[in-house]
Amino acid sequence: MKKGMENIEVLETSISSINGEKGILMYRGYDINALAEKSSFEEVAYLIWHGKLPTQKELDDLDNMLKENRELPASIKHIITKLPKDANVMSVLQTLISSLGMQDKVKEDNLTKAIKITAKIPTLIAAVSRERKGLGLVGPRKDLTHAGNFLFMLKGEEPSEKDEKAFEKCLILQAEHGLNASTFAARITSSTQSDIYSSIITAISTLKGALHGGATEKAMQMIQEIKCVENVSEYIKQKLDSKEKIMGFGQRVYRIKDPRACILEQCLQELANEEPKTYEIAKKIETTMTKGFSGKSLYPNMDFYAACVYHYLQLDEELFTSMFVISRIIGWTTHIIEQNQNNKIIRPLAKYIGQMEQEYVVIDKRTQIL
Amino acid sequence: MKKGMENIEVLETSISSINGEKGILMYRGYDINALAEKSSFEEVAYLIWHGKLPTQKELDDLDNMLKENRELPASIKHIITKLPKDANVMSVLQTLISSLGMQDKVKEDNLTKAIKITAKIPTLIAAVSRERKGLGLVGPRKDLTHAGNFLFMLKGEEPSEKDEKAFEKCLILQAEHGLNASTFAARITSSTQSDIYSSIITAISTLKGALHGGATEKAMQMIQEIKCVENVSEYIKQKLDSKEKIMGFGQRVYRIKDPRACILEQCLQELANEEPKTYEIAKKIETTMTKGFSGKSLYPNMDFYAACVYHYLQLDEELFTSMFVISRIIGWTTHIIEQNQNNKIIRPLAKYIGQMEQEYVVIDKRTQIL
Repeated sequence: MKKGMENIEVLETSISSINGEKGILMYRGYDINALAEKSSFEEVAYLIWHGKLPTQKELDDLDNMLKENRELPASIKHIITKLPKDANVMSVLQTLISSLGMQDKVKEDNLTKAIKITAKIPTLIAAVSRERKGLGLVGPRKDLTHAGNFLFMLKGEEPSEKDEKAFEKCLILQAEHGLNASTFAARITSSTQSDIYSSIITAISTLKGALHGGATEKAMQMIQEIKCVENVSEYIKQKLDSKEKIMGFGQRVYRIKDPRACILEQCLQELANEEPKTYEIAKKIETTMTKGFSGKSLYPNMDFYAACVYHYLQLDEELFTSMFVISRIIGWTTHIIEQNQNNKIIRPLAKYIGQMEQEYVVIDKRTQIL
Repeated sequence: MKKGMENIEVLETSISSINGEKGILMYRGYDINALAEKSSFEEVAYLIWHGKLPTQKELDDLDNMLKENRELPASIKHIITKLPKDANVMSVLQTLISSLGMQDKVKEDNLTKAIKITAKIPTLIAAVSRERKGLGLVGPRKDLTHAGNFLFMLKGEEPSEKDEKAFEKCLILQAEHGLNASTFAARITSSTQSDIYSSIITAISTLKGALHGGATEKAMQMIQEIKCVENVSEYIKQKLDSKEKIMGFGQRVYRIKDPRACILEQCLQELANEEPKTYEIAKKIETTMTKGFSGKSLYPNMDFYAACVYHYLQLDEELFTSMFVISRIIGWTTHIIEQNQNNKIIRPLAKYIGQMEQEYVVIDKRTQIL
């Protein structure tokens, strides 16, 4: 039995393909490099949801629908003021998505619901972040893109073009990645005919883990612990000697460097111009790890360089994992819809390796025997 | 590729074993028939969590710990008053478990957390039910069992011994069932090193679906639609003719009648003494379905007869699915702990069957081409 179900194909999909040997990721047949260079996040969302690139009219319609649905209901804003200020942001999102679901009484197809939920995720995260800092909420603006509007709502000022583009690139690269743990779990929830909100809550609960979306936050904590380039080798050596994981390294499906990490690294070189230190530490960690301290080369994954991009965009570390949600909601909802199209409940078997055929002994005779 | 991962073994477990051909379910090697007849729910919980039957002292300690932790924090009671009264109870539980998780700052092992959460689930459900009926909350009582105390908090009066025992039997039978969809999804969440609350939220979100825990509610709706024994054959025929599912029939892992359904049916015969109609309709549905209307015999699963037991206990249908949570929390948390003991992130592959190597065309040239 393959532990962690490594390399086992469990279902068919038309959403994305990964070539782990060559480091190629394609959404609906389009190479991620072309999309990151030429597309907008909204266009990529359309592509993933619909399976084809949009015409200008189709893109405008989606863009308008996203913009129309960014605003939060008053009741959700009220809940945000009541949440503990130090709670994990992913736990907060569980509660808020569950609350949105309880209020949604509209009968409509899951794609429509998916677009409306996607529109609200950045507003939720920005509101939570500002609320816990004691800052007033900043509402969405319809003249800004999905990426730009989030940074605006979060910080209360329009982002520079450079920052907006860097953040949008992260969103494009994180939108979809096959049967990663959160997407797979969301498909299982969906396979029971549970609702789309519940499936998204499953995905958020799963993404939260340090071995999945939580890796971005952990990677940045590591970089900050290391403090300067000179400390890298010794730090890595100590970690590996004590059998600890280096966060942001190694990826289940890629045998070479994650193609998304390559794109984000280019993007970083520009962002890091004025304050290169963090990028230099990150790059040194990469060269140290790929040299193969522990006998095998480990390559940085997307989380590693996404963490650096977030750092340069001056996002709070407690928000890092939730940045993934802004974008991966596209992949999750598309998988949920795909699962529903030709559904059978996902219910595998476990191999039993425990004790067999025990005889039940009444409790007062038990102490002597067991 | 086996759709729904049917019959595919994906991981090893020592928690329970299912023999689908012979209709045998064992928790930790103990046959479910012996446990349902001789054990208490608390004893079965101990067995599943610890892998062995407790001594009297061990059972008393667990029982005390459950009793000590039944009470809800004031903040959770406050949230319950604020939730929409018509929300799905499973969605309400997502929010409440997430809220409990946000408040839990104690560092302790997952088994301790599991016991504390298990203790509170009945209190949560009873409080939600009473709040939406405008009744005052009834707090837990330490002189009552887990099963009896729930019925007491729900109804505001002590249950009869017969009712308590029937409900306890349901709890024992529902406590664990291998890699059903909710447990499998919870293990995936846990495999990312996400926290125990998040893994439970995943399980609740997954159990919610009509093809999983939601089947109890649907089964009772069907029985009530049918109204009397004479209507059964025609109703079933119509449903099958229009390719609709008969809720509560068919089970992925059993080839014969679900052993838990057999036990619950016995239990029902006693409960239905005074008002046999519902049981008679249920039984007639069973004989009709096993005769094989659609070419193959389908047997009732546990959900089908659990729904009837809940009906005779006069529980509200909107609570049916959540009854499962009171008990399956034992199986879920044990699987979460087992997953953590020798963990590797669960991340299988999907087989890509979509379009390949599309060339990106800029948007203003796109209308003519696509």
